[in-house]
Amino acid sequence: MPYYIGDVIQKAEKLIARTPEKFRETGVNVRTDTRVEEVDQKAGEVRLAGGERLPYDILVLGTGTVPLMPGIPGQELEGVFTLKKLSDAIRIKAWLREIPCRKAIIIGAGFIGMEMAEALRNLNLETQVFHRGKLPVNRWDPELSRVVLEELRRNGVDFVTDTEVRAVSEGRNHRLRLVTNHGESEADMILMAVGVRPDVVLAKQMGLPLGETGAIRVNFSQRTPYEEVYAVGDCAESFHRVNGRWVNIPLGDIANKQGRVAGHNVGGGQMIFPGIVGAQSFKVFGLEVAATGLEEREALQNGFHPVSALIRGNAIAGSMPGNSKLSIKLIADRASGKLLGAQAVGKEGAVSRINTLSAALWAGMTLDDVGWMDLAYAPPVGPAWDPIHIAAQTLRRQI
Amino acid sequence: MPYYIGDVIQKAEKLIARTPEKFRETGVNVRTDTRVEEVDQKAGEVRLAGGERLPYDILVLGTGTVPLMPGIPGQELEGVFTLKKLSDAIRIKAWLREIPCRKAIIIGAGFIGMEMAEALRNLNLETQVFHRGKLPVNRWDPELSRVVLEELRRNGVDFVTDTEVRAVSEGRNHRLRLVTNHGESEADMILMAVGVRPDVVLAKQMGLPLGETGAIRVNFSQRTPYEEVYAVGDCAESFHRVNGRWVNIPLGDIANKQGRVAGHNVGGGQMIFPGIVGAQSFKVFGLEVAATGLEEREALQNGFHPVSALIRGNAIAGSMPGNSKLSIKLIADRASGKLLGAQAVGKEGAVSRINTLSAALWAGMTLDDVGWMDLAYAPPVGPAWDPIHIAAQTLRRQI
Repeated sequence: MPYYIGDVIQKAEKLIARTPEKFRETGVNVRTDTRVEEVDQKAGEVRLAGGERLPYDILVLGTGTVPLMPGIPGQELEGVFTLKKLSDAIRIKAWLREIPCRKAIIIGAGFIGMEMAEALRNLNLETQVFHRGKLPVNRWDPELSRVVLEELRRNGVDFVTDTEVRAVSEGRNHRLRLVTNHGESEADMILMAVGVRPDVVLAKQMGLPLGETGAIRVNFSQRTPYEEVYAVGDCAESFHRVNGRWVNIPLGDIANKQGRVAGHNVGGGQMIFPGIVGAQSFKVFGLEVAATGLEEREALQNGFHPVSALIRGNAIAGSMPGNSKLSIKLIADRASGKLLGAQAVGKEGAVSRINTLSAALWAGMTLDDVGWMDLAYAPPVGPAWDPIHIAAQTLRRQI
Repeated sequence: MPYYIGDVIQKAEKLIARTPEKFRETGVNVRTDTRVEEVDQKAGEVRLAGGERLPYDILVLGTGTVPLMPGIPGQELEGVFTLKKLSDAIRIKAWLREIPCRKAIIIGAGFIGMEMAEALRNLNLETQVFHRGKLPVNRWDPELSRVVLEELRRNGVDFVTDTEVRAVSEGRNHRLRLVTNHGESEADMILMAVGVRPDVVLAKQMGLPLGETGAIRVNFSQRTPYEEVYAVGDCAESFHRVNGRWVNIPLGDIANKQGRVAGHNVGGGQMIFPGIVGAQSFKVFGLEVAATGLEEREALQNGFHPVSALIRGNAIAGSMPGNSKLSIKLIADRASGKLLGAQAVGKEGAVSRINTLSAALWAGMTLDDVGWMDLAYAPPVGPAWDPIHIAAQTLRRQI
């Protein structure tokens, strides 16, 4: 865990410790480790866990998410961790220092689980991932998630498919034992990475309308249906520009942007959050994995007529030393020719292509545009016909 | 010269040697080392250097460019090379094998000169660049080209500014001597990298109208004003989508795309080349250098009201190991808020940002779009607020 459970956590701890003080200089009172139990809208007050009541004129909800748990006996045992808060990371770090950990189990194969698998393997821990499906990272289509699976296995991660987890108990050779439909498996720590859902406890208590996604409904100013209440981040919805729906995609950059928009509006400014196109990425070992827009299934559900093409192209010019292959899948609408989504996986250059395609989605480009877009060609940085061009032209010919 | 004058050349030689044969299988007669002396339009024939005449129904001109020469005494001496054709590369390679080269001089500081400086330093040659200006790569503004200059010097390239070259003669300690306004300098080879101009000898002879750029005028189908004549590549113009003008930017990817368009149309298909946005890049030592759209000066000449902002941002999240800084300059039009151009320099991530911004230019985005565009955030691949966002929002506040 050279990254996430190393220096970054120390930096984050220091930063958070300094936050109240830093804000106090600007006249803002930041209270950390403070739990709001209830919002009394009539009185315009929030009640804290200790009973203290604080008045407000404007309330911004940034309650984030709660980690999902499989709901099995023993899931609360010491050595079982969720992956949500900084305190989780600190606890995991402490555990790794105190216990002679030789083996870890990760339940779930979303991108957080993948990042943890890498971090644990970097610590030389035997690492086992249990997943209910056959392939990791459900957001990516099988052609691409298979590449992720290969990368996991190449790096010594034991990936167990079609798993139903049943119980956690004390182990014999390791601290814990996990029982699944495949039998028993022991480990010194178990990480629950089965996903998150928006934390809407306070919102519900206040009677705030939730969206279809279960997250808090907001408008383009991050305002909820209650005029004096704003919501931002993982607990709120965002407008998806490709399918025209309000979605809940809990990602740090979206939360960050929404925070700025709400803060600006609360302060009397005028700013809107113009939405998202579903861009996301992660790294696992030597692989960049990225996606944007809609998957084929989503496209279909949204009434589009999706067609797709998958190509393997050169990250840089094929004649250059250091070239590697990357896979790009494009999804477009047969009726309008519009690009709907893209997925990419490769040693290098996958994220950069997805960012360029995110700009294309943002602008509502067609495949004709994408297939001819002018990109900055030079042999050491990309081929003359970029994989983006090749994928778009390949898909265009299918329409 | 591990790249350009190494394996790549060998591959290119083999490829070209096989080309006629490969094409013959498809019924196409490719003649290499064949010079067309004249086009007889009335007869519909081309006359080859040896006198042979070949009939045509459709003629495609892909005559490329001719390298500019400084026009000084001695420029034709053995050991003085241009950097245009594969044969130039082969000759340079042979020279390096035959002569115990210890020192090279490059005249000119465009990106080809920069790439050669790297290649020569990689061969441990003492390398001196003579440039008429103060900073290399004129396409980039001083704030960014200064970074290129630092990179050259950090890698032991002697960069001589404000140079007027006067003559080449035989040297005493090295094969050749270059006389400039700064005095004398000796080297075992001199590379002329002062630019190129479109080769329009045949086009002029045929009376083909040239554009204001001096390159051959074409339409969106790559057809010249003569119905049976097409032109593609460095000898032809391209439509610049940002300033709405026909320009001549000799780059391999543009040439490649134009070739496909012309070929398609010649074969009875219907295809247009929708133009360019001026995206380009190169690598020099450890630096990615990229640009797209218009420079401020060009923007002004084109009637825009340019404003610009330069920021230094993180290539990946600042907390991650391996992070490096990159500089991005954005240029926009104050009247419309539209993005007009961008330049970036950095160890990593400069080209990927310029490609994303090229998509933004292609679509005609405003700074409001660019500042909020959804990109694939993850700490190891980019910060939550990408340098693109920061630059666009910084510039937006100036308008």
